[in-house]
Amino acid sequence: MAGGGQLARMSQQAAIALGIRLRVLTGSATDSASLAVAETVLGDERSWPDLAAFSADCDVLTFDHEHVPGEYLSRLVADGVAVRPGPTALRHAQDKAVMRARLDAAGVPCPRHRVVESPEQVAAFAAELGQPRVVLKTARGGYDGKGVWITGAEEAGDSSAFEAGVEVLAEELVDFDCEVAAVVARRPGGQSVAYPVVESVQRDGICVEVLAPAPSVPPAAARQAQQIATQIADLLDVVGILAVEMFYTRDGRFLVNELAMRPHNTGHWTIEGAVTSQFENHLRAVLDYPLGAVDAVAGSVVMVNLLGGSRSDLHEALPSVLEKNPDLHVHLYGKAVRPGRKLGHVTLVGNGEQPVARLAERARAAVAELRGEVDG
Amino acid sequence: MAGGGQLARMSQQAAIALGIRLRVLTGSATDSASLAVAETVLGDERSWPDLAAFSADCDVLTFDHEHVPGEYLSRLVADGVAVRPGPTALRHAQDKAVMRARLDAAGVPCPRHRVVESPEQVAAFAAELGQPRVVLKTARGGYDGKGVWITGAEEAGDSSAFEAGVEVLAEELVDFDCEVAAVVARRPGGQSVAYPVVESVQRDGICVEVLAPAPSVPPAAARQAQQIATQIADLLDVVGILAVEMFYTRDGRFLVNELAMRPHNTGHWTIEGAVTSQFENHLRAVLDYPLGAVDAVAGSVVMVNLLGGSRSDLHEALPSVLEKNPDLHVHLYGKAVRPGRKLGHVTLVGNGEQPVARLAERARAAVAELRGEVDG
Repeated sequence: MAGGGQLARMSQQAAIALGIRLRVLTGSATDSASLAVAETVLGDERSWPDLAAFSADCDVLTFDHEHVPGEYLSRLVADGVAVRPGPTALRHAQDKAVMRARLDAAGVPCPRHRVVESPEQVAAFAAELGQPRVVLKTARGGYDGKGVWITGAEEAGDSSAFEAGVEVLAEELVDFDCEVAAVVARRPGGQSVAYPVVESVQRDGICVEVLAPAPSVPPAAARQAQQIATQIADLLDVVGILAVEMFYTRDGRFLVNELAMRPHNTGHWTIEGAVTSQFENHLRAVLDYPLGAVDAVAGSVVMVNLLGGSRSDLHEALPSVLEKNPDLHVHLYGKAVRPGRKLGHVTLVGNGEQPVARLAERARAAVAELRGEVDG
Repeated sequence: MAGGGQLARMSQQAAIALGIRLRVLTGSATDSASLAVAETVLGDERSWPDLAAFSADCDVLTFDHEHVPGEYLSRLVADGVAVRPGPTALRHAQDKAVMRARLDAAGVPCPRHRVVESPEQVAAFAAELGQPRVVLKTARGGYDGKGVWITGAEEAGDSSAFEAGVEVLAEELVDFDCEVAAVVARRPGGQSVAYPVVESVQRDGICVEVLAPAPSVPPAAARQAQQIATQIADLLDVVGILAVEMFYTRDGRFLVNELAMRPHNTGHWTIEGAVTSQFENHLRAVLDYPLGAVDAVAGSVVMVNLLGGSRSDLHEALPSVLEKNPDLHVHLYGKAVRPGRKLGHVTLVGNGEQPVARLAERARAAVAELRGEVDG
């Protein structure tokens, strides 16, 4: 796995079960996954020599993130390395302009959008939409809300993005009921499975909470979201996990927002909440093993992210949090605390006794205490 | 953790979630746990210098097995190392004669037993019991049926154990309905939790199958078994997991057979089958963190051990097995195949649609195929 963040770390839990040796290429021996795997290769997964040397010893190369340059991956494929997902698929998770063009051509519903090169083009696009404000995104390199901003047509000129020559995508601001994610796993031959569709609550562009299944999406609509995700996985020939983040509009349509081709934050609930976790199904998919069942094991599951707050030692608060919540599943990523950084998550699996709102309250309270917002 | 077998390996899955750095002291870089943890210290956990050097850097020392000499552990305790479970408790899992004497004194029901020093004493004991055959066990060093044999009074003299000066315990052959195990987790201060009581099916002294909860033990009797296990944990001041293997007699009594003070084969079902796995609760207990909920997540869970058979590469059969059983949880320990060796296990969690007998059949068939007994 190229990259040693928490996704590689949690993949190791699945690799241990499957009897697979997960080797990680990452920059530091104290990265989240370095602390969890037996074979860490120190290096830069974005550098050709490091990546080539690392891949030579692997049966399959897969990813913790989307930022490995596609040209290097194409070279590896040409050299006979099994790169999964492949560079052609991955490009659609690396470049939003490429992704939008491809989904448009296939008739997959997306927010209205346009590649813009100047503040004047932003203003013209906003005028066409008849909206005072639009979303601007750098086509490449953004994540967790970085590289995304909302602007009025008049202020668009303030952005330094155009001067820097970065490709920018303008999109309509969607009036949505909620944001949802459909996570699918797909094998090389095309076998795929679709997890229950979840609702994700975002704050400042970062996913903070996931409710599974999505409480405000009726079953028929959820099936439609799963079909869209499966269609995209087939269209792009994705191997591994594909997470499709969508807006669920007030008039009941799904509009695709973002794609990720790796285990995704909106799938962390599956570790305890689904028969097979997204991490295990990602490994199974890239190894071309049959995929595991994706049914939820309970009627409602809540995942809340733990973002860095004022407390620098999370273990300080852990006993008090565990004491209050004997059924809480805590995942700490072993990362140094920085404000806003994803440091862990907690999951509560409903047993039918507590409504989802109560589960969410308890999970949020646990996270608040871990962060240092409230005392035990 | 001293020892790098599959128990340390599976503990790593729980350590990753809790954000704990699990360091393992073991003999080889290819041991089951060495392949799964970031920090393997190569050495002999039964040697004082290796153990002392290893422990100096640990917050808590705990165990993958019972074979670390008690005198070394006592020295570590004297040096201020947190050894959990402590040597005084652990002695009762290391020495069956000591264990029997202590449980007798506390009134805990055990099979009738006697330390014997000669074939004549075996014959005398058998005569007293009025049974033609008795069980002989070496007091120390046995596991998985090793160091246990059944003998008629006449043939006892064939044993070389008496000549070797090994302490031998003679016990009555119990006429049992089934064998059960009660697994509890206990913190230093005494807080404990008891998992649902399971039935374990043994073959040649090795656990081959576990059914949770024990189908043939009524709820009131199961509670009694949990109480016996909790009583023993308190009596011996166990910290961590205590597994109490018992005979459930045809007249409805429980007789304690063996004790283990570490995660135990009869608790592997808890990884997917209980809210908190035995591995996580072992870590929580030895770190003095509050214990997690131990409720089963389903009405029936089946675990079947994968013992080495004719197939040398388990991954060869894995795709076919996964294809047939999308809900199967496979755990492979990364060990080289030897006949009869514990190489992994599989778990099926009932969803209410299949009776436990059908789950067990499917799990056994999966294991048979992995072993190479049948082809896909």
